[in-house]
Order: sequence, then C-alpha cells, then structure tokens
Amino acid sequence: MTELIDIEQAAGRLSDVAVRTPLLSNSELDKVAGGAVLVKPECLQLTGSFKIRGAYNFLCQLSPEEAQRGVVAFSSGNHAQGVAAAGTMLGIQTAIVMPEDAPRAKLDNTRRLGGEVITYDRYTGDRETIAREIAAERGSVVVPSYDHDYIIAGQGTVGLEIAQQCAELDARPDQVLVCCGGGGLIAGSAIALKANYPDVAVHSVEPEGFDDTARSLVSGRREHVDPAARSICDALQAHSPGAKTFAINRQLLADGLVVSDADVRAAMRFAFLNLKLVVEPGGAVALAAVLAGKIETQDKTTVVVLSGGNVDAELFAEIQREGSG
Amino acid sequence: MTELIDIEQAAGRLSDVAVRTPLLSNSELDKVAGGAVLVKPECLQLTGSFKIRGAYNFLCQLSPEEAQRGVVAFSSGNHAQGVAAAGTMLGIQTAIVMPEDAPRAKLDNTRRLGGEVITYDRYTGDRETIAREIAAERGSVVVPSYDHDYIIAGQGTVGLEIAQQCAELDARPDQVLVCCGGGGLIAGSAIALKANYPDVAVHSVEPEGFDDTARSLVSGRREHVDPAARSICDALQAHSPGAKTFAINRQLLADGLVVSDADVRAAMRFAFLNLKLVVEPGGAVALAAVLAGKIETQDKTTVVVLSGGNVDAELFAEIQREGSG
Repeated sequence: MTELIDIEQAAGRLSDVAVRTPLLSNSELDKVAGGAVLVKPECLQLTGSFKIRGAYNFLCQLSPEEAQRGVVAFSSGNHAQGVAAAGTMLGIQTAIVMPEDAPRAKLDNTRRLGGEVITYDRYTGDRETIAREIAAERGSVVVPSYDHDYIIAGQGTVGLEIAQQCAELDARPDQVLVCCGGGGLIAGSAIALKANYPDVAVHSVEPEGFDDTARSLVSGRREHVDPAARSICDALQAHSPGAKTFAINRQLLADGLVVSDADVRAAMRFAFLNLKLVVEPGGAVALAAVLAGKIETQDKTTVVVLSGGNVDAELFAEIQREGSG
Repeated sequence: MTELIDIEQAAGRLSDVAVRTPLLSNSELDKVAGGAVLVKPECLQLTGSFKIRGAYNFLCQLSPEEAQRGVVAFSSGNHAQGVAAAGTMLGIQTAIVMPEDAPRAKLDNTRRLGGEVITYDRYTGDRETIAREIAAERGSVVVPSYDHDYIIAGQGTVGLEIAQQCAELDARPDQVLVCCGGGGLIAGSAIALKANYPDVAVHSVEPEGFDDTARSLVSGRREHVDPAARSICDALQAHSPGAKTFAINRQLLADGLVVSDADVRAAMRFAFLNLKLVVEPGGAVALAAVLAGKIETQDKTTVVVLSGGNVDAELFAEIQREGSG
C-alpha cells in the first residue's frame, strides 16, 4: 500500500521550493519534559505551514491539460495557502473554498498568494459539495486536503527530514508527536519515520471533540466527530479520518493523544515565551501533549511537530495576555 | 588588534552548549526586498538572545579562584540572562544589576536561570558603579557587556556561523545588517565575516536617539547619546561605543543605519505575520532597516541578524494589535 507513496521523490521535487525547516532544541522544554525534546517548526515553512509540501507535490504532477484548467480546493486555511502558493509557482490558477470565519490572516494570505477565495458557512454549508460543483463547472481537478498519495507523500517529507536531522544530530527518536486533522501529515511522516527507525512510536495528537483518529485507532474503523464539537484548533476540524490516511495510520501509529483548548493555549504561551515561535492553535497540539503530560517524556527523546503558525494577531494577543496577569 | 579575538576557539567552546541557529529565508521578505534576504534568528538561541555566546566564552576562561568568588554583571536583560545561564552551566554564582523597568520577562528569566538580580533606576542610578561596588565587596570579577576580547569573540560566532551557512547554501552575502548597542556582536561578527568574505559590507543598525555608533563612524571618535533619549529598544541603549568594539568597528564597518520606533514596531509585526518569529524591539532593528528601505536590497543578498526575542507579552500584544485594525 505505502509503495505508491514516494516520499523521497516528493523530497526531490520540493528541495528547490520548500524550506528545510530546522530541528530545534530548547533547554526549558527539555527541563519541563525531563528528557530531550526536538521541535520541528513547520510554522517557519513557506506559507506558514507544512501544507505547501503536499500541495506542490500534487500540482506538479498534473498533466498540462489539467494544469491549464486550474484547480479547486477546500480548506480552513493552511491547505488553501499551500495550494495558492504552489499554483502561483507553477502557473496554475487556483480557486479555494474557505469557511467565512476562517482566521483573517489565512483568508488574506490565500488571496495574496494568488488564490481565488470562495467563502461558505462552516456550520451550514458543505465545502466539499461547493468545491465539486465549481470543479464540474470549470473542468478543474480538486486538490484533496489529505486523502491522496501525492498529498501524503508531500507531507511525509516532514517525517523524512526529521529522520535525516535526527541522524545528523546523532539522536535516536523514541517517539514523534504529530497533529492530526485528516491524517495526511502523520501518515506520510509515519511511513518515512518507520522506514528509518522501525521502533519509533508515532502518536497522533488531536483537540478534544475532534479525536476521531484516536477513537478510530481504538475501534479499528473510521469514527466521526460530533457535528456540535467546537475547538480553538481551526486547522484540525476534519470530520473523520481519510480512507487512505487511516489505512496507513492504523498500521503505523502507536496511539492517539487528545488535548484540551486550555492545553493548547498554554502551549502557545510556552512557544512565545521560550521557543520564540508563533504557533497557531492547531500547530501547538503536539507541544501541548508534552507540556500537559499526556505522554511520558522522562529520559526519552521526543520529537514534536509544530505544524503551522497562521494565527490572527487578535487571538494571539489574547492568549499571550492570559499568561501575563 | 583582532588577533586576540579568537572566534574559532570560542565556537569550539560553544559547540556543545549553544544552539547553532539556522539561517532562514522567507519568500515574503525576498519579495519586499526585491532580493535575497537571509535571516539569522538568534531569538531561537538559548536564553532568547545571542548574549549566552559571549557570556559563556568569558566565564569558562576564569581561573578556578575567580570562578569560586562568583561574577557580577550589569545589563538591561539579555546579557543578564546570558551570564546567569552560563554561570549555572559552569557552577559559577552570578549577580546581575538590572534596571527596575527592564522587561519583566527578562527580570523573571534571569532569576529563573539562577542569577541574583539587583535592580536600580535606569535614569538616576549608575549601574556600572553599583556593579563595581558589589564586585569590590565580594571580590568578584565583573563580566563586561561588550568591551572585552572574550565577549567579542563569543558574539562573533554569530558572524562565523553566518559565513559557514552562506557557504553551505552557496550564497555570497553582499551585506550583513547587525544591531548595535555597545557594538560587541557586530565587532566580532564583522571580524568573522570579513575573514571569509572580504568584500561584504557590514552595517550597524541602531534606534533613533541611540545612534552613537553611526555618528562615531562618521566623526571617527566615540560619540555619546543624549541622556534624554528614549527608545522602545531596551536592549540597545548603550551610551557610547566601547573602546575595543569601536576600534574594530571603525576599521571594518561600512556605515551605520538608523531606524525609528515605528519602523521597529512594523518589523515586529512583519516577523509575527510572515516569519512566525517572536522578535523583541532591539532584535528587530536590522529587519526594520530592510523593510523601511534604509538600504538598497534590490538584486542583492542581504543577511539580517534578529538578535533576540525577549519581549513582554503585553507589549508584544499591543504591537500586534496595531496592525490588525
């Protein structure tokens, strides 16, 4: 199954366009964890999240005819920016269906990166239907958010880089924590990590209410979220694991961790104060799991992926102020 | 003169204790500059600024007798944290004289890192006198903030890493912009940069009102700041260039750039929105110079050092909100 997901090939395609984000350590974080924690800050990636990796890997494999008709995507914001930026790089027109209450930074940036933005109501509209209608009208390909080999391979370059960078640092990772919406980033990363470190434990991290992957890993089938669920993590609100991603994740993941919005806010403050990184709510869940003690880190080497940093200034300011009373 | 400043040796001492911060690129920044801009984020350094480099290099060269009597330093905050952290690493007691209105994050962190903090009034007290009195009482060595070969050598490892990382990226820097308080970071960095790239132009950047190095480079003698001057850049408020640092800087620097507080605030917002980095006011002046067009960047390769990220949440939030109206 995973042989169709060529992460090395994706890495080759991305080497000239994406940032090889560093693998950072921080003494405060090590102190809190009681062990070594390595941080992969994809907030430093082009477009402020890892999503450009999968989007570019998908778009550059379109046929010339497909490329000419443009593409359509639906996204709460990070995939939107990744698709828009990759489209601009490759000269492909992009239309993105986004929730009207997406963070303003994500809406603005998607337009600025060259995407045509079409908004809808997150709680009453169906973005997938809207996107498919537009695609049908225009004869465009839909760029999946996660459930496609090319997307999974592109996002998996995060895991490949972690494996390479751990080797460069002479560090053997015991466990890697990765946020999980639809599961593309963790599926691809788990393939690359397990290929290099067969014993590494890869854990998904989700916000409370959107723990569909955690529950699916337990039940063995794709569970759904309660439509009434709400979370500060706008980037991690997939309704269920993807078919392809879950087929990989159920084989490769250790288990699924779950964090609260309060854990996430505390992690964003920690990142501000100690890591000096701007991390968005969905990007902070893996760090939150470590800081909230959701997993044993004592005397272990733990890698956490900070998947993105696209957060509105107002919300960021509000969260930072909570900690400065 | 510069042969006493052994930056390679300092780099060897620091290799196991300090972070080799990455050299990052960002497409938005390149777009604004019309050329390649490489960012050296020392906000990601241990203690949140480059200051640990010089402090550690100084403290580890004390005699056992000196080390046993502890050290004293005076600092607005970043040198304080660097000295406190280096002291804790090396088992040396540290006392730090700090302005009572220093950013709370800097005061708190200095204590947390193991330093004894002694506060004074920035505008009526003389921190140097206070520090020398304490040193005399205790028989302690004073750790200079900038005007010492070991400090300059330690800070110069920033420039050495930039030179190495440019070579790794196959990039030849045309110009390097470095913030300047007393001038230790830029003096050491200029030595390392000029040794590797003799034609590179190294520019100091200072906030308005604290442009003593810029004016000194013009007049050829050490100029002083107006005691009435105020700036948001708490880390860059030295009253005049150091004797040693200026002797180096007048030989090696191109010229001095000056930015306004408004330029700095805009740069901090840019860093938040696009670089996803938390940069303190004094750490943002080099970026501010690029963004405010204080230097030609079109079709050039420009390196900017972001020297630190220790900013209080309240001020950071206030500055971010200015841009989200």
